This record gives sequence, structure tokens and C-alpha cells, in this order.
Amino acid sequence: MPARDHRPKGIWRVTDIRAVDWANGPEAGMVLLDQTLLPGEERFVVCATVDSVVDAIERLVVRGAPALGAAGAFGVAVAVGEGERRGWTDVELRTQVQRIRDSRPTAVNLAWGVDRAAARIGAGLDAVIAEGRALADEDRAANRALSRHGADWILDALTERASDGPVRVLTHCNAGALATTGWGTALGVVHELHDRGVLGRVYADETRPLLQGARLTAWELARLGIDHVVQVDSAAASTILGGNVDVAVVGADRIAANGDAANKIGTLGVALACADAGIPFVVAAPTSTVDVATASGADIRIELRDGHEVVSWAGSATAPATTTGFNPAFDVTPARLISAIVTEVGVETPGDGSNTIFRATGP
Amino acid sequence: MPARDHRPKGIWRVTDIRAVDWANGPEAGMVLLDQTLLPGEERFVVCATVDSVVDAIERLVVRGAPALGAAGAFGVAVAVGEGERRGWTDVELRTQVQRIRDSRPTAVNLAWGVDRAAARIGAGLDAVIAEGRALADEDRAANRALSRHGADWILDALTERASDGPVRVLTHCNAGALATTGWGTALGVVHELHDRGVLGRVYADETRPLLQGARLTAWELARLGIDHVVQVDSAAASTILGGNVDVAVVGADRIAANGDAANKIGTLGVALACADAGIPFVVAAPTSTVDVATASGADIRIELRDGHEVVSWAGSATAPATTTGFNPAFDVTPARLISAIVTEVGVETPGDGSNTIFRATGP
Repeated sequence: MPARDHRPKGIWRVTDIRAVDWANGPEAGMVLLDQTLLPGEERFVVCATVDSVVDAIERLVVRGAPALGAAGAFGVAVAVGEGERRGWTDVELRTQVQRIRDSRPTAVNLAWGVDRAAARIGAGLDAVIAEGRALADEDRAANRALSRHGADWILDALTERASDGPVRVLTHCNAGALATTGWGTALGVVHELHDRGVLGRVYADETRPLLQGARLTAWELARLGIDHVVQVDSAAASTILGGNVDVAVVGADRIAANGDAANKIGTLGVALACADAGIPFVVAAPTSTVDVATASGADIRIELRDGHEVVSWAGSATAPATTTGFNPAFDVTPARLISAIVTEVGVETPGDGSNTIFRATGP
Repeated sequence: MPARDHRPKGIWRVTDIRAVDWANGPEAGMVLLDQTLLPGEERFVVCATVDSVVDAIERLVVRGAPALGAAGAFGVAVAVGEGERRGWTDVELRTQVQRIRDSRPTAVNLAWGVDRAAARIGAGLDAVIAEGRALADEDRAANRALSRHGADWILDALTERASDGPVRVLTHCNAGALATTGWGTALGVVHELHDRGVLGRVYADETRPLLQGARLTAWELARLGIDHVVQVDSAAASTILGGNVDVAVVGADRIAANGDAANKIGTLGVALACADAGIPFVVAAPTSTVDVATASGADIRIELRDGHEVVSWAGSATAPATTTGFNPAFDVTPARLISAIVTEVGVETPGDGSNTIFRATGP
């Protein structure tokens, strides 16, 4: 069916980006901005079946830890709606909900969003949808708050270093409005620095293999009118050691209780370079990304994706046919390399990672 | 004109790879294996004009520091031959030779090869060609010698660490037979370990933006029957810190007198990860790569290539149209991060980079 235009009416501002949302009416379902098509095309798709939800999550139509939280919650609503149409038993419905929960293993937010919405199944479809909307609203509010905390912390840290020019930032992957339900986390901090008039150039790592930096982060920065360049991921070390940036800010997919943080593959290398150069390395994420049940990074399961994402490009092989691609989607940055973890409730400095800094009651 | 088949006759062994050579006869000129077409196609091209030499070097039809040395020397022969046909004055010939010398600024070998052959111009074309052949023969011999030194050093170092399983190696870019006049430097060390029966899996970084690792290193490893995987460059840090490799071995495009080494962008990040993990980081290069006139890495001019190599792929944009690509082709790894520099005359351990370890008389 031809997709309805789900873009906000009127002027299309960057603050209006809704990577994941819910649509009522005749085409009810989860609405996703198809991020596999950016930056070339802005197309919204509606998921009305569990199959389409799982496919969208696996193919990264929607990605980014906080966005996956909302996608998990709205995904449960999709499952409830499909179950009503098809007459699923409670066991069948639970099985389908579990499929959504398992569709990406590293991001804790997905399971968290699914569980939160699933707890409302007994109250009916409208209650599940309302839970998804509440989660999304809270995520946007958390992002605004953590961005203020992050900007404050960075400006304080750079003042201590007597660095008072425009703040030049390196970021990896996309932790912007597209990775969340709005505003963004790491890019939210960048946006906040921009709004305060203190932002310099942003160096965006392209983020192989799927180029979320080149495709998505650059798309957001261009819309915000922020001075930026895209570089290959492996240029990060020389950009940092060469004194071209003042701070690195990244998101996270799962943060362990000791402050170890899983994020897109390549984040660890950025952290190592920052440590060597003596500049701050900042992780920005809502508390929904913190998994207090995970003691340290050693307990985080890393998603190993299909090697073809590495050794082919747009359908063409980039390596000999007999060569295998090794494709871990994430890496774990140990707490000792993290200068600050910024959440909506404040800033934690994890130290050497030997202490539990996040507990079930919050950081 | 249809290219003659310049491949060696008979069984095509990996040790036969001649990335750069000279052909006499009716199609006289420099013969290059067009590395932009690998791994999909093995096509040899003949350069009979200075324009075609400069184009081939700039487009990376031939690349790799030692191969550029030979290409520089044979390029002078091309210039002499073209000058004879066109009746160039001595000044015109020198201008054309300088164009070849300037076609890539970071690799010291190119200028070295040009200068060495240009010193023979007065003795005639055959003498210039002979100088190129001598340089190529010496390079191959140097590579065999440095590979033995490198393998010896690595096995000693790992024995001291009580690591006695198969040696698992990470490499970045391509420093193999294709990057030289034969056998290879970093990949030559790998080949030597393989021949000794002590090699484990090789992790090859794909090496964005031009994928020399995926296209060329994997092609060589596949031909050698070596167990290998290709990974995105940014996976190197987690591969190393995760204990998947025992040593990293890379080539170099220019080594300063204090041991600082310029190599393909991303090498610095590999070195930082090795230092953090406490495993050896080895630079393998012939002494022709050492530039005793360059005191330290701060004096090395880094080639900044066209940003389109980063933000487009096979003609399609990977970033918004207004986004600029930042594309340094090389980075400099400081001596303090280098465990060993292996040349054909032995192994240097550069220490903290405060000392001159290479002098005009050799290391």
C-alpha cells in the first residue's frame, strides 16, 4: 500500500524528527522513519505485524538504543493488535512479544521497552499504546536534561584545562534524534552546545560497516546548520592526537553497573585515543540504557552480525569470494577510559571500574 | 590498444606477483598490475608516457611505499623514452621527472626511486632501466631478509610472554607483494611465519576509504591459503583488547630518524590498542623507507586526499550533498608506541622517540 505521509505538518524542523512513533486510525501501527534510506530519501513506513517489526529492527530501519526502547514498547502494541485480529492465545502472543525482545541482543533498552509495555497487556491495546507514548515522552525529556548536564560538564572540564575557544567535538555512530524518540543523547549534547553558541567543528566518524555517521549524523548536523566533516573511522586517532578536537561524545547501547559501556564498534578506539591525548571521553545516555543486572562489560553479550555487511557493498564484493567478514556490531569501553557518564539525573565519573556506580534505585 | 598478457607464464604462484615491472619490446614501458581493479579483475597496464605514470600513481593503480620506489625509477625510464620520441630538452625532461617525484608526497620511497634512476639519465635509457631493475631486485631481497628478522623477533618476543600457540596477527592496509616489488614487508613477515608453520589466523583491517585490506591483503592471503578474516578498521581495538591476536604488523610509508613512522590512516589507532593491551606493535619496512633527513614525525607532510573518497562510494553519495569529507591518507605513529622497526639489516627498538636511531649510514 502507498505509505501515508507521516511527516509533521508545516515547517519540518530538526527538533520534529520522530524516528519512531505510533499512528492511530485506518493505518494504525508503529511509524518508523526508514533509516536505511537516509540521507538519500526520507520515507516513513508503518509496521502493523510482528514480522514487520522484527524485520525493521533487524535491518536497522530503526536503530539506536533509546529508539529501540520505544520500538520495543510500540512493537508490543503491534503484537496485541495483530493478536486481536488473528485470535492469538495468550501463549501465542507472549511468544511473538519475545521475538521482538530478542531481535537485537546488545541494546538493553529494547528488552526494557518490551517489558514495560508487556506489563500493560492485561489492560488492553490502548493502555499498551499509552505506555509506549509515555516512554517516548520520558525519553525526549531525559535527552533534553542529559544534554544540559553534558554541556555543563564539558564546559567545566575544558575551562579547567584553560581551553576556552569553540568546543570541537568528535562523535562516533549516530546518537542523535534519529537514535532516540527525539533530540538525541550524544548529538543532543552537541545540539545543546550549539544552542549556547559555543560549538566549533564536529568530526563525525563515518561508522562502518553501515555508515550511520556519514548517513545519519551528518544528515542531522546538516539540518542543524552545524559545521562538520565526515572522516573514516580510523582517522579518529590522528584527529584526536593531532589536537583537532577538544572532547569526544558518544552514546551507549548498554552500560554495566561498574560503568563499562557497550556502544557501536569503534567506540573503544576513540576512547583509547582520548586517554592518550588527555582529552575527555564522554558517554551520554538515559538511565534506561543502564543495566544494573550487568556487573561489568565482561557480562555484555556482543551481537555478531552477518560478515557480508563488511565484505560487500551495495551488492558488490569488496574482498575475494572466499574471504569471511568478521562483524561484531559493538565493543565495550572499560570504565577506566570513560571520563564521564551523563544521564538525565546527572554525571557519574566511573573511575577505574572496580566499583558499582549504578544501582537498581538509579545512579 | 589491447594489453598484452604480462602475467608470468606457467603456474601463477603468489611469489610471482609483480605489481611493478618493466617490459621491453614493441610495447616498452612500465607494467603495472592495476590494483584499483582487484580483487575482481587481474589486469596489467603498460605506462609509456609520463602522464600515464602520474595518473597511475595518483589513482593508486600502483601503491605501497616500496612499489612506489620502483615505479619512480621505472617512471624516469618512461620519461627518458618519451623525451627521446618527442625531442624534449634536458630542462623539459627534468620537469617531467619532477612531476613523477611530486605525485604522492608522503612516501619517501617514490622520491628516492626517482632520484636514484634520474642520476643515471646521462648514461642513457638502458642504464636507467637497469637501475630500476636493480632497485626492484634489491627490494625483493630486502623484503625476504626483513621478513626473517621480523619472524625471529616476534617469536622471541612471544616466547618471553610465554605465548606459544599459533601466532595470530593483525595487519592494516596492504604491505604485501602488491605493495612492493615482490614478497612484501608486513605481509612478508606473515608469509614467513606461515612458511615456518607457526601462523594462526590473520585479522586484516579493511582499510577505508579505499579498502586495500579487503581488496588486496585478503587477495594475497587467499592465494597463500592463510586463514584470515576481514574486519572494519574500527574493530581493531576490540579485536586486540579482546585477546584475539598476539601481534600487529604493519608497513610504513616514511620512517623518521627518531623512529616515528607514517603509514596508512588508522595505523596509529592499532598502535594505541596494542600499547593498551601490552602486545607488540611491529613496523616492517626496508631501509629505503627510512628518511634520515626527517628528524621526527612532526616533519612528515601528510597527503590530504579528495574528500569524495570518504563521502561517496562507486559514484553514490554516502553523506548529505553539503557534507565535506576529511581525508588524510596517512597518520604518524610515535616511536613510543612502536615495539620494533624491522628492516633488512635488523631490528631497532625505538624507545621513547627522543633519540636518533637512524643515520645516513643506515640503522
